[in-house]
Amino acid sequence: MIYDFRNFKSVDNFAFGKGCFNHLEEILDKKRKSSDDYMVYLIDKVFENNPLAKRISLKSSDYIIWIDTTDEPKTKEVDRIRDEIIAKNRKLPAGIIGIGGGSVIDYSKAISMMVTNEGSSAQYQGLDLIKNPGIYNVCIPTLAGTGAEVSMTAVLTGPEKKLGIKCDYTVPNQILLDPELTQGAPLDQRFYTGMDCYIHAVESVSGTWKNHFSDAFAEKSLEMCRKVFLEMEPGLEADELLMVASYMGGLSLTYSQVGVCHALGYGLSYVLGTHHGIAGCIAFNQLEDYYGEHVADFRKMMEKNQIHLPTDICKNLPEEKLDKMAQTAINLEHMWDHALGKQWKQKITKEQIKDLFRRM
Amino acid sequence: MIYDFRNFKSVDNFAFGKGCFNHLEEILDKKRKSSDDYMVYLIDKVFENNPLAKRISLKSSDYIIWIDTTDEPKTKEVDRIRDEIIAKNRKLPAGIIGIGGGSVIDYSKAISMMVTNEGSSAQYQGLDLIKNPGIYNVCIPTLAGTGAEVSMTAVLTGPEKKLGIKCDYTVPNQILLDPELTQGAPLDQRFYTGMDCYIHAVESVSGTWKNHFSDAFAEKSLEMCRKVFLEMEPGLEADELLMVASYMGGLSLTYSQVGVCHALGYGLSYVLGTHHGIAGCIAFNQLEDYYGEHVADFRKMMEKNQIHLPTDICKNLPEEKLDKMAQTAINLEHMWDHALGKQWKQKITKEQIKDLFRRM
Repeated sequence: MIYDFRNFKSVDNFAFGKGCFNHLEEILDKKRKSSDDYMVYLIDKVFENNPLAKRISLKSSDYIIWIDTTDEPKTKEVDRIRDEIIAKNRKLPAGIIGIGGGSVIDYSKAISMMVTNEGSSAQYQGLDLIKNPGIYNVCIPTLAGTGAEVSMTAVLTGPEKKLGIKCDYTVPNQILLDPELTQGAPLDQRFYTGMDCYIHAVESVSGTWKNHFSDAFAEKSLEMCRKVFLEMEPGLEADELLMVASYMGGLSLTYSQVGVCHALGYGLSYVLGTHHGIAGCIAFNQLEDYYGEHVADFRKMMEKNQIHLPTDICKNLPEEKLDKMAQTAINLEHMWDHALGKQWKQKITKEQIKDLFRRM
Repeated sequence: MIYDFRNFKSVDNFAFGKGCFNHLEEILDKKRKSSDDYMVYLIDKVFENNPLAKRISLKSSDYIIWIDTTDEPKTKEVDRIRDEIIAKNRKLPAGIIGIGGGSVIDYSKAISMMVTNEGSSAQYQGLDLIKNPGIYNVCIPTLAGTGAEVSMTAVLTGPEKKLGIKCDYTVPNQILLDPELTQGAPLDQRFYTGMDCYIHAVESVSGTWKNHFSDAFAEKSLEMCRKVFLEMEPGLEADELLMVASYMGGLSLTYSQVGVCHALGYGLSYVLGTHHGIAGCIAFNQLEDYYGEHVADFRKMMEKNQIHLPTDICKNLPEEKLDKMAQTAINLEHMWDHALGKQWKQKITKEQIKDLFRRM
């Protein structure tokens, strides 16, 4: 076991279970200190005409910003929304509430920090670069699997790279894990997002930074993902299980790390804009040499859930783009170090990475 | 699943792994705001002439209070130590650091709250009775299994009952889980404390308040306890596993509850002063009717670890004491409700509880 000291910051408060979303109002009311304190909700645009939105009671000068998740979360968009919030209001919000999948959660985590830190969010992509604590942040997932609700990373695509803002301040203050909110999500999205959790857990237990803490969380998370996608039908119970798996998958990365699949997935997202969940699945499907039986299980889960992955997405790509993709992946040194060990540069070359992409 | 909303407070910061205790000084230094800020260490008396104590560097006006854990933690003792701290110093400590098993951790949690709350700690035995937040509290277990490092309960024996102070403020601010600190603990104590974790997990998954959150944590915790006590030899690796199991066992109780065994164990402790860990084992050994296969596994673990439980501890007890014991147990209504369901009074009588005690 490789052990690197980190004094990990937890989510301050968490509530779990069907119906816990009903308690959002009382939770937020405790954070309103004066009558002009207001909250900004960031909600995935797909909920704009959905009953979920009607369950939110806007008080004081609360308002909603609908988030377009067509593209992966971008530093430019974080900066734009932050500027809009600051320009529109005389004072900062009392809290930012993110409601959606991993993209919206990452936006809400990043924007909470960026209203109190100057400059562009692109400056802060990396470890411990944020200077000031952010404002109160609540994250409420409507898809389960990314682990974003519990992780210390807000992954963003910037002008130069796809990389997370990662520090103690990134961790949300409050999470509500209500499986009722994930009902009605398209089944393929539910699958891709769930597989993000599965892949986190596989990478966590397969790497060199693993230890008994990360293993325990990852192993249980794996077991639950297999149960959800091989033995259960989609529904409230399966989704509740998946929410716990996502939470554990996120925590498994606290003392471990993602690996080869995430490095390749970041390459796909950065160059082609492929969404994180599906990018991970496309990459994972080519990684039998690294993750063996786990890839076989993944294919069984695809079959059971009638998922047909896009193929040949890199086939006709110009060499230049392929090169950029491989460079993006190989730059994520911490992932390769974890996956293959300190001597990883002797075990994988940019050319080999390009070959992996060519198969996708 | 029965689900009762609770917005659970997490431990603010946690560090895990061999050697993390070495970082205590830098963690505490961040909490010292002025030169006369000081820390009070509560440390189990067994470490008084032990190398562990020498690893603590006292700064400013820091000092150590050695805690005698011959008896179970008592409200009277909490009050006494609290009064001593207040009388001795012009200002409150900047933090209370508890180093020891579950007893010392419960003392440190309770005293942290009692320096800021008036009256006797006995007034606060129950749910959400504490009025003011406590002072900064760090918990560092030297035995693994109680889950006290992560739970929202500080269990105390008062003049009228054995019951926890339970509220958000009870949860420690910081935990350090360093398996090096549990090396050298007597093997029987290690076993009894480890079984506290095992029994938590069994009670959590066997009751009516269970749900997918509590199940996931309890199931993994059970699996790890079985591995530690049936397949591994005592040592650093096994103890590291047991620390994670303890953490998970504690969290499994967040949305579930303990059950029959803890109710009976509290009865033994209250009347006979039997320590929590061993009391649980003595009770659990008589609970095949409730916990079936789990009791069989428990006996296998006893055998493998050459543990000989005391027998006939209630055999010659006067009827009056037996009655008090059963009354203590039956008063813990939430435990019976969880274990047997809302109609629990139709399923167990005080006479049946006495019979269970008579077998111990």
